[in-house]
Amino acid sequence: MAMPANVKTNADHPIPETMKAWVLGNPGELTLQDKPVPVPGKAEVLVRIDAVAICATDLEIIYHGPPAMIQGGDPYNKGFTPGHEYMGTVVALGPGVDEYEIGERVTVEIHAGCGQCKRCREGMYTSCHNYGKNYGDVDKGHRANGFTTDGGFCEYQVNNINTLVHVGDTMSDEEATLVVTAGTAMYGLTELGGLVAGESVVVTGPGPIGLLGVAVAKALGAQPVILTGTRDNRLEIGKQLGADHVVNVRKEDPVEAVRRIVDGGVDYVLECSAAPNGINEAAQMVNRGGRICLAAFPHEAPAVDIAHLVRNNIYVYGIRGEGKSATHRAEAFMRQKRFDATLIHTHTFSMDDLPEAIRYAKDRVEDAIKVVVKNKHAAAKHAEAAE
Amino acid sequence: MAMPANVKTNADHPIPETMKAWVLGNPGELTLQDKPVPVPGKAEVLVRIDAVAICATDLEIIYHGPPAMIQGGDPYNKGFTPGHEYMGTVVALGPGVDEYEIGERVTVEIHAGCGQCKRCREGMYTSCHNYGKNYGDVDKGHRANGFTTDGGFCEYQVNNINTLVHVGDTMSDEEATLVVTAGTAMYGLTELGGLVAGESVVVTGPGPIGLLGVAVAKALGAQPVILTGTRDNRLEIGKQLGADHVVNVRKEDPVEAVRRIVDGGVDYVLECSAAPNGINEAAQMVNRGGRICLAAFPHEAPAVDIAHLVRNNIYVYGIRGEGKSATHRAEAFMRQKRFDATLIHTHTFSMDDLPEAIRYAKDRVEDAIKVVVKNKHAAAKHAEAAE
Amino acid sequence: MAMPANVKTNADHPIPETMKAWVLGNPGELTLQDKPVPVPGKAEVLVRIDAVAICATDLEIIYHGPPAMIQGGDPYNKGFTPGHEYMGTVVALGPGVDEYEIGERVTVEIHAGCGQCKRCREGMYTSCHNYGKNYGDVDKGHRANGFTTDGGFCEYQVNNINTLVHVGDTMSDEEATLVVTAGTAMYGLTELGGLVAGESVVVTGPGPIGLLGVAVAKALGAQPVILTGTRDNRLEIGKQLGADHVVNVRKEDPVEAVRRIVDGGVDYVLECSAAPNGINEAAQMVNRGGRICLAAFPHEAPAVDIAHLVRNNIYVYGIRGEGKSATHRAEAFMRQKRFDATLIHTHTFSMDDLPEAIRYAKDRVEDAIKVVVKNKHAAAKHAEAAE
Amino acid sequence: MAMPANVKTNADHPIPETMKAWVLGNPGELTLQDKPVPVPGKAEVLVRIDAVAICATDLEIIYHGPPAMIQGGDPYNKGFTPGHEYMGTVVALGPGVDEYEIGERVTVEIHAGCGQCKRCREGMYTSCHNYGKNYGDVDKGHRANGFTTDGGFCEYQVNNINTLVHVGDTMSDEEATLVVTAGTAMYGLTELGGLVAGESVVVTGPGPIGLLGVAVAKALGAQPVILTGTRDNRLEIGKQLGADHVVNVRKEDPVEAVRRIVDGGVDYVLECSAAPNGINEAAQMVNRGGRICLAAFPHEAPAVDIAHLVRNNIYVYGIRGEGKSATHRAEAFMRQKRFDATLIHTHTFSMDDLPEAIRYAKDRVEDAIKVVVKNKHAAAKHAEAAE
Repeated sequence: MAMPANVKTNADHPIPETMKAWVLGNPGELTLQDKPVPVPGKAEVLVRIDAVAICATDLEIIYHGPPAMIQGGDPYNKGFTPGHEYMGTVVALGPGVDEYEIGERVTVEIHAGCGQCKRCREGMYTSCHNYGKNYGDVDKGHRANGFTTDGGFCEYQVNNINTLVHVGDTMSDEEATLVVTAGTAMYGLTELGGLVAGESVVVTGPGPIGLLGVAVAKALGAQPVILTGTRDNRLEIGKQLGADHVVNVRKEDPVEAVRRIVDGGVDYVLECSAAPNGINEAAQMVNRGGRICLAAFPHEAPAVDIAHLVRNNIYVYGIRGEGKSATHRAEAFMRQKRFDATLIHTHTFSMDDLPEAIRYAKDRVEDAIKVVVKNKHAAAKHAEAAE
Repeated sequence: MAMPANVKTNADHPIPETMKAWVLGNPGELTLQDKPVPVPGKAEVLVRIDAVAICATDLEIIYHGPPAMIQGGDPYNKGFTPGHEYMGTVVALGPGVDEYEIGERVTVEIHAGCGQCKRCREGMYTSCHNYGKNYGDVDKGHRANGFTTDGGFCEYQVNNINTLVHVGDTMSDEEATLVVTAGTAMYGLTELGGLVAGESVVVTGPGPIGLLGVAVAKALGAQPVILTGTRDNRLEIGKQLGADHVVNVRKEDPVEAVRRIVDGGVDYVLECSAAPNGINEAAQMVNRGGRICLAAFPHEAPAVDIAHLVRNNIYVYGIRGEGKSATHRAEAFMRQKRFDATLIHTHTFSMDDLPEAIRYAKDRVEDAIKVVVKNKHAAAKHAEAAE
Repeated sequence: MAMPANVKTNADHPIPETMKAWVLGNPGELTLQDKPVPVPGKAEVLVRIDAVAICATDLEIIYHGPPAMIQGGDPYNKGFTPGHEYMGTVVALGPGVDEYEIGERVTVEIHAGCGQCKRCREGMYTSCHNYGKNYGDVDKGHRANGFTTDGGFCEYQVNNINTLVHVGDTMSDEEATLVVTAGTAMYGLTELGGLVAGESVVVTGPGPIGLLGVAVAKALGAQPVILTGTRDNRLEIGKQLGADHVVNVRKEDPVEAVRRIVDGGVDYVLECSAAPNGINEAAQMVNRGGRICLAAFPHEAPAVDIAHLVRNNIYVYGIRGEGKSATHRAEAFMRQKRFDATLIHTHTFSMDDLPEAIRYAKDRVEDAIKVVVKNKHAAAKHAEAAE
Repeated sequence: MAMPANVKTNADHPIPETMKAWVLGNPGELTLQDKPVPVPGKAEVLVRIDAVAICATDLEIIYHGPPAMIQGGDPYNKGFTPGHEYMGTVVALGPGVDEYEIGERVTVEIHAGCGQCKRCREGMYTSCHNYGKNYGDVDKGHRANGFTTDGGFCEYQVNNINTLVHVGDTMSDEEATLVVTAGTAMYGLTELGGLVAGESVVVTGPGPIGLLGVAVAKALGAQPVILTGTRDNRLEIGKQLGADHVVNVRKEDPVEAVRRIVDGGVDYVLECSAAPNGINEAAQMVNRGGRICLAAFPHEAPAVDIAHLVRNNIYVYGIRGEGKSATHRAEAFMRQKRFDATLIHTHTFSMDDLPEAIRYAKDRVEDAIKVVVKNKHAAAKHAEAAE
């Protein structure tokens, strides 16, 4: 369908009625199909997707289903399009939108809360009580693109303006796809207290969130920042992103190492390893009154030393997503070149080659960290710009 | 117009297409006219208005225009219906609303933020950056009924569900209109810190917000609670609402009195007097590190001893309205009968007699504090219930 | 030794040089011995102990050692006097103390932070980084009476003025010993957010902290307040203290019951049961973005569903003690008679009969909840007052 | 007097019994006299003063008396030694101190709270309720060196360890004296919310606090940061410290300029100008829900548009000093070379030439911003180090 009259578009760049979109069939099966280009409603824009980074959660959804509770169950064989770490260009404005302009480059975060539940009203939109309610009789307007609504492995997607972040000219498409990852790390550090300048921080697990967690903690002035992990090459990237110390947990006990570096233990741990013992080790790393953010989780339920948490006044923050506008703060640091997020970007594929890109991400082919897929129009745009 | 198909109604109680509404002509001129019954949109309900309390701000709007910045200027001769402290019965549900039921008694707060500006996203919807933008090309969905959108001096009004508060069976219509006033006091105490049990609080000015400020402070456990004012009868009501001490500022210096009662000064002042010297006296009443909430303001700009604020680490919170869901917390205390808000309700009129009711409120005829107007259907409903 | 010259005393009531004190030998062995009356230093007073409640933690210390990390290890055969929930009368003022007066009735909280570590400087004195450092070369001034310094099962004890709470005339000695228990519950609710009026709260476990947790939550306006437990008589006391609903977990599944009472789950859980599955059940009881305070802990490390915490943005606060001046807020509610804490006081013994009192508390003889021991001078004082 | 036995010193570097100290006689009169070297008590160290920066408040005290309430009145002809922005070397440790080592370089903040009032217990030690009580019968241990206790225009001074900040090897003595100024700016930004990355900030007044306010705001990621002032050379330094925009208020209206740069107004204003209309202009610069920190104040009481503050939900934070450990956060940024604080250091004199140094600071001779005086031993130390 063509855009309705109350949607603002640029007549010089007509928007097609259909697009190519990757669609999830059975677990692990993605096929490229034609889908209607979605229409932006109130407080929404249409984004032409230029680049999408692949997240471990995408792999989880594609192979096992979404990690959070959804109304209506699994995503298989229902025409679902995954992908949530995307960026692109605004091409249409829903009714009443003047916060963004057509042609503006934007990147996205995931959660558009319903705006009418108690959590949204508190500003905690990532904990929206209408999570997943975005269709039929119970449409509350919640969207988590790539989780509960169609995502970015396609050509166009609608986004609530609350989920948009402006992208500056000096930031490449690939770097822009990493803003939401940095935003998740920023959210974790926000919940831990936010004022981390001069405070000691351990980041466990040098995956994308962990590595950018190091970068964001350092940008905020934390010192020392200690990164723990199993692979020296990842730890080396952590150093480049600002880690003052790295600890290879295969070579030394991480709790002992941390307490040797910071006598008495650190103030904060950002747990990104998903290791079964991650929470217990974190609890041993922090000092009395220390705080732990769980940004990852093991699939099995590990035995947890609850007594240690209680005896030492330790607070534990489970976070999902990137709330409290953390993405905007992360983007500000990236725009100001406080750290080079592209150090974690390792591979780029065409959107047409998504299955191969997914294989790289899933099997960590060639030590892949962040794999990005790009639409052809994005490449064309740049060729044009270069002429 | 009849309700559209996506609005849920009760077929047994059809909603008329037009209603009687008081409309503002020139300053001070209200006439009763026919208006279409408004239609609830997404996240909105239609409320049949049963009772409305008259607020000093209503008088301000009717005679001088609205107190806050509005897009598009003054309200005169534009068909505007004032009135914002109303309660009633839900009679129609906008698309997707299942948070409230038809027939449910509700009272309202004023501010429905746009949900898409930075303040709304922080949970600070009373500071919505799209304040007043609710029409035409710039419709952001902000509503402040009785301020920037039509209010309650009529038979029906639409309300965003964010502005509704459930009213329990044991609360009368008149008491329910006072929830928003208690909510404003609660918001002020929330911003002052919220944890006021055992802390010392001064409330200056025994108007409706001040008197319920005493009640809410006491319900939260504050002690002592000191009320200052010029009229003994009002101060007496303050005592009934929980004030541990009252100070008639015509009889003794309020700063001296407060510092005599609490050696070293109090922790918090809720300034509700609008007296020109209110902020300076408040600053002299609080101890080092004390906090002041300005819930009222003088029309002229008074000379303020800034140096005293800075030297003593005093924080000053200007508040407008009843943010952070304070109305829900206030209603909870009222439902639990922690204080008797009806002590400030002095007069009731029929909605048909609104001009006379306004005269009572404006000129404080017979020591009027809160004057309530009621629609006939509400009276009829109760007659029915009594049969 | 007599009090030094810089300690202020009342000449009419000379303080003896020695006192009777219960002293811990081997685990479980308490003997009554003579000890010097301690001398208050800077910012300290000497309290003549009138009454002491027995806490489960006292039993833990007496039989198994203290629950938190202490420098210098176990308390056995070192002349240690346990007991931390005491109240009494100020009989001597250390140098410079004018905040309290001789003859003033006071009750105590446990933790006097060192005042010079980063946590104390943040106001988090219960997480003092110099916990247990109060002697010899490393004297940092930390005191946790009954934990790391001598406690209250004796006649006199010194207390930092930070640990004192004034006791009003209308509060009995027995009730005053319960202030610190209410303070712990208040601290838990403070960390959960504090503004709980109208919010839903579950308290799990009707021990002393849980029962007063119900009372404090209700005083703060929470609704509904749901109490879960295994014994109907305890649940019945919970009802008297304000619980809107009680759930006997032997009769129905507590998670199902809670979610039936509050659709979608509650906002807060105060976990006081120490049940191995307590944290998991709490996590299933709260809604998205809900918060859990762990005020108790199982001795074994239970399997915890970390994934559920992360997926649902759940925060978990391990607390020890009664920080952030919560005891003062609890005492304010008790002074205002918002709830009757004495409902949990079941037995009184003479201090001479401490072993028997401990047996009652330990074995829950005659359904004992709170057992209080009183010094003879306190009884004498009251006889005198009654003449 | 020699150091007592419980004070730890380095036998190789004996501490003299007397020292040279500048002493305040009549207003404006400083004379160099002999004074006993003070002795550190519990939780205190003795600092050999190496360098001291001159602050506008020093001039205020020397010529007009201290800006905050003090017990016991004016400082004239009482042997008072002013000076509070000093740094030096730890030369003796009071009883029980092991947090710092002899020989360690430190810089200082001003406020050592009493540790026993309600504000100190909340972590708000700059609002200590025992401000100025540090002598005789009412010794509460409060110290504000250079304000209520002897300061740094001398050779040695005692400091509570809470007021010390470690100085790294790569920071010069002169730069170290500026840490407390940066800490004051950091405190202001902390109270405004702290999470200012990507938020818009105006700093009014390019004095030392304003200029470092620009630097700290930028280090925290604020954008844009706008500096307003009257002198282009100062504004130019602001640009070097990170201001994205500067506004010369003699050339354009600052409110208009700010609202032109940031449509709708900025989020925060750090008011450092002390201009009479500073608060009103700040209120016009911020958007709805914006916040203003008053880090300076006019001597006269200006007329303030209270109504504008209330109508727009504006919060105003008067701050004095550098609370909440802000100095540590500021030092962390300086250690990490996030900005070059020495851009505001313009002149250095010998401590012997303090009157001339004061003349430079007071009359802004040669555009002086920060004037530093150094003790000879510091110069000697460096000569030694250079050999």
